[in-house]
Amino acid sequence: MKTVLILGAGRSSSALISYLLDEASRQGWSVMVGDLSADAAAERLQGYTIGRALRFDAGDEQASRATVAAADVVISLLPAMLHPVIARYCLQEGKHLLTASYVSPEMKALHPEALGKGLLFLNECGLDPGIDHMSAMQVIDRIKAQGGELTSFESFTGGLIAPDTDPENPWRYKFTWNPRNVVMAGQSTARYLHDGQYKYIPYQQLFKRITRVHVPGYGAYEGYANRDSLSYRDTYGLDGVRTLLRGTLRKEGFCGAWDVLVQLGCCDDTYVMHGVEDLTHRTFIDAFLESAAGVSVEEKLMRRFSLAPQGPELTRLRWSGLLDDQPVGLATGTPAQVLEHILTKRWALHPADKDFIVMWHRFRYTLGGVEKVIQASLVATGEDAVRTAMAKTVGLPLAIAATLLLQGKLAARGVLIPISPEFYNPILAELSTLGITLVEEEG
Amino acid sequence: MKTVLILGAGRSSSALISYLLDEASRQGWSVMVGDLSADAAAERLQGYTIGRALRFDAGDEQASRATVAAADVVISLLPAMLHPVIARYCLQEGKHLLTASYVSPEMKALHPEALGKGLLFLNECGLDPGIDHMSAMQVIDRIKAQGGELTSFESFTGGLIAPDTDPENPWRYKFTWNPRNVVMAGQSTARYLHDGQYKYIPYQQLFKRITRVHVPGYGAYEGYANRDSLSYRDTYGLDGVRTLLRGTLRKEGFCGAWDVLVQLGCCDDTYVMHGVEDLTHRTFIDAFLESAAGVSVEEKLMRRFSLAPQGPELTRLRWSGLLDDQPVGLATGTPAQVLEHILTKRWALHPADKDFIVMWHRFRYTLGGVEKVIQASLVATGEDAVRTAMAKTVGLPLAIAATLLLQGKLAARGVLIPISPEFYNPILAELSTLGITLVEEEG
Repeated sequence: MKTVLILGAGRSSSALISYLLDEASRQGWSVMVGDLSADAAAERLQGYTIGRALRFDAGDEQASRATVAAADVVISLLPAMLHPVIARYCLQEGKHLLTASYVSPEMKALHPEALGKGLLFLNECGLDPGIDHMSAMQVIDRIKAQGGELTSFESFTGGLIAPDTDPENPWRYKFTWNPRNVVMAGQSTARYLHDGQYKYIPYQQLFKRITRVHVPGYGAYEGYANRDSLSYRDTYGLDGVRTLLRGTLRKEGFCGAWDVLVQLGCCDDTYVMHGVEDLTHRTFIDAFLESAAGVSVEEKLMRRFSLAPQGPELTRLRWSGLLDDQPVGLATGTPAQVLEHILTKRWALHPADKDFIVMWHRFRYTLGGVEKVIQASLVATGEDAVRTAMAKTVGLPLAIAATLLLQGKLAARGVLIPISPEFYNPILAELSTLGITLVEEEG
Repeated sequence: MKTVLILGAGRSSSALISYLLDEASRQGWSVMVGDLSADAAAERLQGYTIGRALRFDAGDEQASRATVAAADVVISLLPAMLHPVIARYCLQEGKHLLTASYVSPEMKALHPEALGKGLLFLNECGLDPGIDHMSAMQVIDRIKAQGGELTSFESFTGGLIAPDTDPENPWRYKFTWNPRNVVMAGQSTARYLHDGQYKYIPYQQLFKRITRVHVPGYGAYEGYANRDSLSYRDTYGLDGVRTLLRGTLRKEGFCGAWDVLVQLGCCDDTYVMHGVEDLTHRTFIDAFLESAAGVSVEEKLMRRFSLAPQGPELTRLRWSGLLDDQPVGLATGTPAQVLEHILTKRWALHPADKDFIVMWHRFRYTLGGVEKVIQASLVATGEDAVRTAMAKTVGLPLAIAATLLLQGKLAARGVLIPISPEFYNPILAELSTLGITLVEEEG
């Protein structure tokens, strides 16, 4: 009996496990879910009569190898640093491995061995990285096949909240992913290529130098650049490309307000503040502003950053409670920790909240001497705070890849990412039947 | 015969060695100068009939201890990381040690042992730290003795160029100290106290939030905050002080222009740029600006930072050649390395250039219910690029302290800094006879 082993039963595993349980029922396969907590694993199997939950501790080599040995395909949702360990077990036991994580140097080094043993170690097969690769390469390969020459590729993805969630929230954002990563985002200089020139955006400019994006049916968004856009030139085989920019998408107005926090220094994680236990939200913000007797915090912000009293930036800061006299409620912390704590009060996902994924690509190319543009966008909406769009878009590509692999429909072997038609065509086709579709617009 | 040993015969040793050679001639003392290069040491003794140059390698314990054993007082101008090694030799041989460096934790830990052996290990006895401590504490102790209560202490020091050096240079600045430190300055968040509130200034605000300073006879300066002002509360015993700010002084207009480079990201040392061998000064700056077809670099700077074409910022960038099409002339480098290389073309000290030290303190205090202010400033001008103001102001306090020590006029022992009257009164009095005087203004 064919068996798939899923390692990691955290939140982002729900859609993946459900899909594979349904598929296994139809195909007569077996599903094992392993987690440090066997209870967490069992919870994911509720409502299904098949599937086996077990405790899995990657540090216990003997038990881990025995578990891996019982499977045909292993899907790891464990923290990325554990992937080389799991990959080693898979090599020893001769099993395929699928992950949604970036290929680390350690993982990359296993390519010859995986290839030699006839194993597929498919990585970067989630949302970002994952669907971004597949949806981009499908268009890029089509342009090439038509004889077109790609001159520019821009791609932005964001995890936001659905239009009907928190309708009064002017940020159109809540923490749908690790809050700390959101607060720390962008602190390394972003590097990209524009019209053949290498360009650099330091943190202090990042949220000012945004790309405006219109997503059909969903309105105006803005993207800020990710740290490294340049590696995609090699990854996607875009030797002649003159513009290459990858970034993160937010709803219009987010970046300008977030930039106020960046400019103030509220996202700094390099030192512990004095007297955190006595801070309120308002005195936290004031600690980053000059002293001026009798001048309010709002007035100081307006002067320092040329803001209007009812403008988009102050409206957002006010909505998040950042100007309230409420105690922070931490005993100690860096500015980044204090900010995360304050924002979590308004930005934590409630059970009924729906998250929302937006991905947008713009391809510019020349075909027969004519300059052409394709914009492509994809949106996915969560059902609630558990069955999130993030869980679906990260998990379903992995689940589909595992299914294809067990069905003998994937022939490629070695340490790979899903940038060839063998992967992206069937995975994107199946995602489309599940309501996750890239919509293209020419011109 | 009493003997003083000076370790390190670099540029900043000239005034120190000359002073001690003169004093030794009068007093019948002996002077030894040790350096990794015995030739460099010998050069400092030119024109004098006394004094002995020798090779000194701190890593050679046996030879080093023998040299130290021959002295009564050791003055170390070696790199600060070597001071604990030298201090260990001094403990073993029972010799006093003087340095101009901050007291490191390793040095501080030697206090009981130095005290037990009746040795003075006097540190922070140069300019900054050094003259700043002494000149501030002299005023602070006087205020306390009068029954006044200090409420605010602000202190700024800068190493600049003399008014008659490079008169057309709008920055009024050249590299009189380690250029790399100048380019990297301020990249950690500055922390200070204002009116009882802890305040934080991140790098992106540092050169915007300046303190304006008027130095009698020398005009308008501006100061930006140093990383840690708060430690001076303990050092100076200022328990009740409500404002405490230390910083670096520049001529008016410097900070606004430097801030353009900061905002662009030109001072970033965390990554290596692409294609440095092909960069010109102008394309270096352009790499940090958005692409815009047909728009000049000047125009892009003006738009991005709201600058006037002939305004103070662009005037300074232009004067430094930053907008020239001249090749950078480096094969590789981080932005900070490229910027340093470009700036050195205009900011290197020429042989006839004179450097210029400005120190400024402002003390606010209440006396008999009345609020009072004292401003105090000190300037020192170099004679040329060797006999610099920096060498004088760093070296002479050490030379004077050594003289006092050999004369038996310093009784304090242990690891100390010159914040007590026993040190600051005679040292400041002697500096004053050498033309280095703090000028006070009340109100």
